[in-house]
Order: sequence, then C-alpha cells, then structure tokens
Amino acid sequence: MVEGKEQQIWVPESKNPRVVVVGAGFAGISFIQKLKNKPFQLVLLDKNNYHQFQPLLYQVATSGLEPDSITFPVRKLFKGQKNFVFRVAEVERIDTNAKKVYTNVGSLHFDYLVLATGSDTNFYGLEEVQKNSIGLKSITDSLNIRSLMLQNLEKAALSGNEAERASLTSIVIVGGGPAGVETAGAMAEFSKFVLPADYPDLKGELMKVYLIEAAPKLLGAMSEKSSEDTLRSLKAMGVEVMLNTGVKSYDGHTVDLGDGKEIKTQTLIWTAGVAGVFPSGLERSISAPGRRLKVNEYSQVKGYGYIFAIGDVGGMLSDQYPHGHPMVAPAAIQQGVLLAENLVRKEEGKQLKPFKYNDKGSLATIGRRRAVADFGKMHYKGFFAWVLWSTVHLLSIIGFRNKLIVGINWLISYLTHDKGNRLIIRRYSKS
Amino acid sequence: MVEGKEQQIWVPESKNPRVVVVGAGFAGISFIQKLKNKPFQLVLLDKNNYHQFQPLLYQVATSGLEPDSITFPVRKLFKGQKNFVFRVAEVERIDTNAKKVYTNVGSLHFDYLVLATGSDTNFYGLEEVQKNSIGLKSITDSLNIRSLMLQNLEKAALSGNEAERASLTSIVIVGGGPAGVETAGAMAEFSKFVLPADYPDLKGELMKVYLIEAAPKLLGAMSEKSSEDTLRSLKAMGVEVMLNTGVKSYDGHTVDLGDGKEIKTQTLIWTAGVAGVFPSGLERSISAPGRRLKVNEYSQVKGYGYIFAIGDVGGMLSDQYPHGHPMVAPAAIQQGVLLAENLVRKEEGKQLKPFKYNDKGSLATIGRRRAVADFGKMHYKGFFAWVLWSTVHLLSIIGFRNKLIVGINWLISYLTHDKGNRLIIRRYSKS
Repeated sequence: MVEGKEQQIWVPESKNPRVVVVGAGFAGISFIQKLKNKPFQLVLLDKNNYHQFQPLLYQVATSGLEPDSITFPVRKLFKGQKNFVFRVAEVERIDTNAKKVYTNVGSLHFDYLVLATGSDTNFYGLEEVQKNSIGLKSITDSLNIRSLMLQNLEKAALSGNEAERASLTSIVIVGGGPAGVETAGAMAEFSKFVLPADYPDLKGELMKVYLIEAAPKLLGAMSEKSSEDTLRSLKAMGVEVMLNTGVKSYDGHTVDLGDGKEIKTQTLIWTAGVAGVFPSGLERSISAPGRRLKVNEYSQVKGYGYIFAIGDVGGMLSDQYPHGHPMVAPAAIQQGVLLAENLVRKEEGKQLKPFKYNDKGSLATIGRRRAVADFGKMHYKGFFAWVLWSTVHLLSIIGFRNKLIVGINWLISYLTHDKGNRLIIRRYSKS
Repeated sequence: MVEGKEQQIWVPESKNPRVVVVGAGFAGISFIQKLKNKPFQLVLLDKNNYHQFQPLLYQVATSGLEPDSITFPVRKLFKGQKNFVFRVAEVERIDTNAKKVYTNVGSLHFDYLVLATGSDTNFYGLEEVQKNSIGLKSITDSLNIRSLMLQNLEKAALSGNEAERASLTSIVIVGGGPAGVETAGAMAEFSKFVLPADYPDLKGELMKVYLIEAAPKLLGAMSEKSSEDTLRSLKAMGVEVMLNTGVKSYDGHTVDLGDGKEIKTQTLIWTAGVAGVFPSGLERSISAPGRRLKVNEYSQVKGYGYIFAIGDVGGMLSDQYPHGHPMVAPAAIQQGVLLAENLVRKEEGKQLKPFKYNDKGSLATIGRRRAVADFGKMHYKGFFAWVLWSTVHLLSIIGFRNKLIVGINWLISYLTHDKGNRLIIRRYSKS
C-alpha cells in the first residue's frame, strides 16, 4: 500500500456502467445471473468466497450435513460470465456523494450500488446473551453449535456429577420461528436416536431440549393449524416447549426467564430475531422495522436513485406488507430478478416496473418425516408435507454435486436415524 | 475440580483388566475392534472425537473433498461394543511406575497401555520453516492449506502488481514422498483446470507449483521405475521438480535453497519428514530412527512388559527393516490385530506370537488418472495403477456414507476436472 494514497480495489477496465453488488446471497446472485451478457460491469463483493444455503444451516449444526454441501464457491457459480468480477472484501462504509464503497481491502467507485447484505442475529441489546449464546445465521455459527454441543457431551462423559451432566447436555433454543422449530426437532432426534448409542454410560434423563418463544404460538407467520401441529409434534418428540416466555439474561450456565424461573444449560442457541445488516453511511434511510433500509417499489433506497437494497436488507413497506416482505429466499430472488430487468430498462430510458411479491407459501420441517405447509388457504402436514419440504429444499440448493450429496445424506439418515457428521473438526470459538 | 485432589477421568466400574489405548488411528482402532467381546475394559483416549483417513488429507487440502467425508466419529465406530469406553483427552505424561496416564482432563490408571499415537510433521529443527509453513498430517493442516491457498489467490486478484501476484499464487511443496507427490499433482491440476476458469483476470504464468526433494529421486521407498514415471508425469503436468535440493530457511515470503537460489512464495507445504509422537515419560525408550519408540517383536516398548507401541510410533527394528516398518496403514493395522491376539494369549498364559509384516505393495497417485504401483517385483503405471489406487483407498475409508460421498466426488471430478470444495470456511490460522 502506498503511504498517503488511498488503496483501491483493482478491477479490469470496462466502458460499461459499474454495478457494485454487496452480498452473495440469493438476492445478489439472482440479480447478477439475470444480467449475464448485458452491458454492465458487475462487481460482486462478499466477505466470504462462497454462497451459503441458509435454510439448512440447522442441519449442519445438528451433525446431519457437512458444511461443504450447503455452500458453493462464488467463482464457480459465475464461471464464464464475462461481465462479472468477484472480490473477497468486507464493505465497511459507503460514500454516497462520491459514489464509492470502502472495504477492508480498499475502495471502489460505482455507478450503481446494490446492497444484498441480508440480515444477522438480533439479540435486542441483551449483551450478556449475545456474549454467551450462538446465533444461526452462517456456516460459522452452525459449526460453532455443532462443536460446542459435541464438546459439552464429551465433557459430560468425563463427569461423575449428575447436575453437571444435565447442564452440559441440555440444549436451549430461543425463538419459535422456522429456524428454532427445525433446530429443536433435529436436536430432539439426536437426543433420542444418537445419544443412547453413542454415550451408553451417560445415564438418566439427559440432553433435554427446550424451545422458548415469547409469543403465544410457534411459527407466528404460518397458519393456526400449522402452529398447532408443530407444537403437538415437538411435544411428542420430547421437546419442552415454553410459550409466552421471554429470556431476561444468560451467563453461560443459567437462563434467567424472569419470575424466578431458570434453566441450567451450557448451550443456548438464539434464533429469536434478525436485523438487516449494511455498511455505514446510510443511517438516515433506516426506517423499516427490523433495521431494514427503507426502499420504494423499485428497491431504491430512500433518498438515492442509484443505490438499491434487495432481499432481507430491503424494507419495502406496503399496505399488504406493513413490515416489509418476509425474509425468505423467494422474496430475495424475485427482487433480484426484477431489479436486473429494471436496471436494463433504466439504461434504455424506459419506465421501471414496481415489485409485486408472488407468495408461493410457507414450509417448515419438524424432524425426520414431519413437516407443515401452508399454500394460500391450504394446509398440509405430516409425511406429505415433509416430502414437499425435502423436494423444495433439494431443488433450491445450488450445484448438482451438492444436491446429490445432501440427497444421499437425507436418504441414509431417513433409513437409519443417524446423523453422521458428529465431528469436532475445529473447536468452538466465539468469533 | 476439588482443590488439592487429583482430578480423575471417570469411567464405569469393571472387573476386567483395563487397557488404555492412546490414539484413534488405524493401529488403535483395529486393536480395539479385534478385542470386541473379550474380557478387557478398553479405554480409548484421543484429542479428537474422530478417526481421520490420512492418505486423502491432500485431497481436502486441494479442494477435492470435504473434511467430513474422510473423518469418522469414534463413538459411531464402536457403537454397541460393550467393553469400549471413549474419552476425548490429550495424554501428556505417563507414570510408568504407578501405571497411570495424565491428560489435560485428568488421570487414569491402566493395567496395559497401548500407544498408537502416530507421527507428526518433522521440521528437523528448522524453526523459521516450522513457523511459516504448514504440514500435512491432520484435517486441521489440510483445511489450513485449503484456506491459505484460496486466501492468497483472492489477494492476488486484488493486486495489480505482477511480482506480488506470482508470489501469492506459487505453491512450494517440500518432500518428494507420496504426500508431496500427490499434493503437487493435485495442485498442478488446480492450476491447469480450475484457475483459468475461476480467475479469468489473473494474467500470465501464475500458480507455479514447485516440488523440492533433498534426495536424488522422488518416492524413495518405491522402485526405480515408479520414481522415474512419477518424475516424468509431474514434469509433463507443469510441476517444477527440484531434486538434490534442500531448504535452508523460509520467512513466509522467500524459500532459501542455499547457494543463493531462492523461490518467492507465500504458501509452503512441508511433507519432508515425520517423527513419532508420544507423551512424556518414555524418553529412555526412544532409540529407533524417526523418534519412534523402540519395541520388540511383540510391540512391547523396551523396558516395559505392559506398555506397547503400534503403528507409526512403534519402531520395530529388524534385519529386513533396520529403520522399522514403513509408516503406512497396513503395517499399523497388522500390528493392532496381532497385539490384540497376543494380549488374549498373555492373559491366558500362552506364548506370544512375533510380528511379521505382510507387505502388500506400494501405491502413489499423480493426478486425475495417473498413478504408480509396486507389488514385489511387478510395476504398474498409468490408468490401470490409478484405478487400483482409487479402489484400494475407497475400500480403506471407514463408513459406507464416506465411501459413497468420496466415490461421487471422484466420479464428478474425473468427468469434469473440477475441484468443488474451494471454500474458505474458516480462515487460515497457525495453530
């Protein structure tokens, strides 16, 4: 780096307008794919060199899948796309006047900026909880959960003390949305099928799984029927579901639920909320709930015609969606595709098209062969919903090899109840 | 832990003699499997909760396989074996008089002790090299190589400086044994097939692969023909092979080869030597070359009738093998099995059987469809040897699911030249 001179990210020369895209999630990659062969220079920045399939993070966390099978190298994804440039960079700040992004490896000028930075765990200011628990929003989170849970089981095997063992093996999951429900179901299966075979000398009522939700129902965004089915199924699997229950604090050993109630555990997984993440410089445009950036129906960030926010980070409020669209892959993909089309229209001086979300329904799985599904007014549950869930997710995973390997893992696990990836490859470390 | 009182590892009560086995490699696990249903309490201690398949570490390092597919959970391996106890523990010291092992999590008494602790990278006292390079003896090593190499490629993509790019993308491998040869071949393939597609804007002669060997030939333990075939194949693949060449030092940027010769690289992989590893307390029994423990033909460590060393750590010297047996899986497995049989004989007051190594031959692969094989006086090369290599390794990997996933990865890679796991999931960190 030359002293006194600003480090710039090197990209090839191009006569086309430069679109800087931040984030290789579903929104960012569908936007870029749609602009293949269009006259733009598309520069994608992400702090990781891979796309990750978030809906299956919980299966990595519960030893059901290898991390490599739900991630996909960004460069492989866009192999042969000539207008595409990728740089591993963490964007820290946006200079909206100079039209520049500042990253940990240098700065870069843009003509258009597309923020597809997604969302991260929201601990609602509970610092002690944040310090002692693990979210479930990245592969690193998943591997940390997997390692911590297995390390604690090994610690329990070393201990002759019953209370210590109970605290080491209990798992508390906070948040009754899809991530919490799916994690609780998978942990209950681990407890029922893997634990007795793996740890024959751990006696008694070990590895209790708790699911804590502040609202009076699970899966708040789904139908009443789905919520009830889910509650019934989880209880039948042995999960201790606590509704109308908040978490006040957690010191790494005791969950304080207020009212004097507490749970002893050394593993707390926090799925109770998410908040949009984006670089500094756009603070005055935060106005949507969940710390999203307020955008209009063309995904333009309020106040900037040349900065866009799509996916989880874009809060597009409307009468039908007063809190913005659901933070799910289909909304992100639809916004990415439409923005790509609109950018072409913009360059051609044409009228932009407003976004309209095509809600294809909701699905959540509750273990090996149970799931719930809502499509409009239709509700499905049990084995059929589970097959549907499996199919939809398998089709959504990027890459033929990944689909194949995930499919094989599911088939073997379906036949044997096994979760074969119970490996502590790198020990848990709070990042 | 109670103050002033020694922490003990808790294991269930048993009336049978307790055999403490240290290390879950091929020697340790074949020993334990052979003693299923025999009247011993078998306590296995390993610092990891998995067995790792060392011959394929280089494929994880070169983005060809996921780490999970060449590792296998120890507890799953011995599921249902009633005389088996497993504890994750790193053995630090042996008290040979008190018959106790001391670990990072407490102590444990033994009646018999079986050391199957394997070997680790030998840097021959070159501290600067050790500090700045990576060995290839564990999954952690492999993932560190994978991350460092990919991180350096991403750094190169950010740089406009040609010399900096060359230094970031060059890979130097020291050691011309099977690990070095196989790594060099896989890196050359990465350079030829993956790099141009993934990094279209990296220009010029990038990602040069060097293989440095101090002896005048590669694969010193194999036949003259195999050595020559290997040298020819690697050169044809673009590997710069340097024989009769030693490494004097490496500061993280420049490899000093003596005589003023040097190579600029930021990635150095050290496969030039291994040394036995074992806890302290047995120093007076080190006398075999390669820091192995000197053992007699019954694998008894010199000076102790109740302590055994099998696999890489056991140096059983004979006229035919003056430096001990080769440090390979078949020798480890054969020693583990015979020791199990001998321990039963010992308890029954019978005569022990001396070990005789059944050498089944040697194999090494040099890329996607080339390998060399020596069986007695027979030598094979090319595609047939490669099919043989693939079959032998696939059969040796533990677990049906692992075999299947590795097989699929190989098939896809064979058809497409691709290495799909080029993921920096956790950044390189020197452990």
